[in-house]
Amino acid sequence: MADIAFDAQKIAFAPISFQAALALRDLGILEFLNNTPADDKTIAKKLKLSLYAVQTLLEVGLGLDLVTLQNGVYNISKTGWFILCDPMTRVNMDFVNDVCYQGMYTLKDSLIKGKPTGLKVFGKWKTVYEGLSKLPKKNRTSWFAFDHFYSDIAFPAILPLVFELKPHTIFDIGGNTGKWAKKCLDHDPQVQVGIVDLPGQLAVAKKNLKKYKNRVSFHSVNLLDGKSVIPGGADAYLMSQFLDCFSKDEIVSILKKVKKAADKNARIYILEPLWDRQEYAASTFCLNHTSLYFTNIANGNSKMYSLGEMEECIKKAGLKTEKVFDGVGRFAYTLIRCTK
Amino acid sequence: MADIAFDAQKIAFAPISFQAALALRDLGILEFLNNTPADDKTIAKKLKLSLYAVQTLLEVGLGLDLVTLQNGVYNISKTGWFILCDPMTRVNMDFVNDVCYQGMYTLKDSLIKGKPTGLKVFGKWKTVYEGLSKLPKKNRTSWFAFDHFYSDIAFPAILPLVFELKPHTIFDIGGNTGKWAKKCLDHDPQVQVGIVDLPGQLAVAKKNLKKYKNRVSFHSVNLLDGKSVIPGGADAYLMSQFLDCFSKDEIVSILKKVKKAADKNARIYILEPLWDRQEYAASTFCLNHTSLYFTNIANGNSKMYSLGEMEECIKKAGLKTEKVFDGVGRFAYTLIRCTK
Repeated sequence: MADIAFDAQKIAFAPISFQAALALRDLGILEFLNNTPADDKTIAKKLKLSLYAVQTLLEVGLGLDLVTLQNGVYNISKTGWFILCDPMTRVNMDFVNDVCYQGMYTLKDSLIKGKPTGLKVFGKWKTVYEGLSKLPKKNRTSWFAFDHFYSDIAFPAILPLVFELKPHTIFDIGGNTGKWAKKCLDHDPQVQVGIVDLPGQLAVAKKNLKKYKNRVSFHSVNLLDGKSVIPGGADAYLMSQFLDCFSKDEIVSILKKVKKAADKNARIYILEPLWDRQEYAASTFCLNHTSLYFTNIANGNSKMYSLGEMEECIKKAGLKTEKVFDGVGRFAYTLIRCTK
Repeated sequence: MADIAFDAQKIAFAPISFQAALALRDLGILEFLNNTPADDKTIAKKLKLSLYAVQTLLEVGLGLDLVTLQNGVYNISKTGWFILCDPMTRVNMDFVNDVCYQGMYTLKDSLIKGKPTGLKVFGKWKTVYEGLSKLPKKNRTSWFAFDHFYSDIAFPAILPLVFELKPHTIFDIGGNTGKWAKKCLDHDPQVQVGIVDLPGQLAVAKKNLKKYKNRVSFHSVNLLDGKSVIPGGADAYLMSQFLDCFSKDEIVSILKKVKKAADKNARIYILEPLWDRQEYAASTFCLNHTSLYFTNIANGNSKMYSLGEMEECIKKAGLKTEKVFDGVGRFAYTLIRCTK
């Protein structure tokens, strides 16, 4: 019973825990302790902080198991080391603080309205994508660091799977600024790549992929426009961490457009980190929490999906799942290969 | 290693966890499951929520062990029940959300400046006490619910200890609106009580204690004014959960004033929940987190203290600790009895 009461208090005080951990990190206390275990007075003196600030933070740090205390000497714990040094944890914390923290105050409203009500902290946009370039620098940096961390990490493991059937032409749907396209173009000097996205993204992609000249084509398509058409002629249609930006109905509509475009021998690849296909409970935890970023900040109606949800969309769009590659890469992505 | 990585992610996503738990509570999902285990579609239909809202929340709820899932049917967990039904957990969560959440975004600044920078969310005051009556109703209600919950709970266990030496006159320093005074006046029909506080508080106390007529006296004293004087003539000077609103230097100064006022046979009682004298780790955790409310919202320089810190102040003020009553009441308060 005592443990359960404690678990409940950990949730009840969670925002304070978070800000305390961040302050322990950003005021240099964790780094100091990582170099030299020390008492509170020494830490305060060396870091030019008040003894009061150091004591109140370290006392919370003890409760969070970020530091240990023995005979008046504080030391960093293993969890504290993760908060300080693990790149993923840093990226997650910065993202939660700089992108999500303030907006999350209205999470309940977002859930009721189906709108990202937290986004108003930054500006009057319908989705975060509209406002990305106008976010304050610190917040924008944390957004992109989070986005890139999880997309970059997927590339190496996924590429061989996408090239298994030796495609001549790949269309990257939602190709954004051309990161995936570049990987493909470098991986196989013969392959042609088409990027399908909104004009703004294509403009950036064009710049980034200049040197590949006519090996790349650009296709301006608003996928949420019911009448828009995806061009045909590719052997492979790739949607990499793209569909989680859409609601299930929107996903079905997009997949139907892909179906219309695709030849009968073409393959459709969907790459997603699916929350029910993770090796570690921690990964599932992170993915499910990321869903609420979509709810509250990004668009109000998308999420990180399960394999069942994704297969339901595939089926509704009239596509067939041919093969599921599970647990790909360090963060256990799933690559679903479909045919018409 | 996996456990430690998970612990770090729990901290990294903590603000989202908190808002999700609150939404599960306030959208009625936990209450619904407490009555009837159900699948997501049923919950959505009965509570008139979107399936999307219910699913994203429940998926986070699974990771937080607030709900369980078996064969598509969700049920409330023991921790979920605590979030829903335990009065203390509710009071804590409401306080953290309605008083602390938004301001905590600038915790680091508060620690650097020694000012409650989070308070600007509500208004331009130096301390929360100045602004209390002007807080929006919901936020004010949560502040008072938190304050009263922890003071009310201490009364019954403490009263016999304060009356052990049969005082004729008790001065309640920082007596606020007269809650303690009333308990004392009711407990012993012979006792006289004096309330020492700021004029605003005394005005309310006068109203509340009207029926006790000349058994009560009111003494307007600004304890932070170096020249102010506490009146003498009492057998017992009581400071109940009062000193945690002050920095250590201020505490020493207040205790010196009490020493000056007190006769040599008088007793000085300090009642505090001290974080190192708790039976449960959860209580220590809550107290240390409450310190950061003082840092960021209340005044920028006070905290929940340890016995060692309090005894250091007592010593510096020239008082002697006569007896320490530990673990008093449901939340393990400490009553320190001092003499001149």
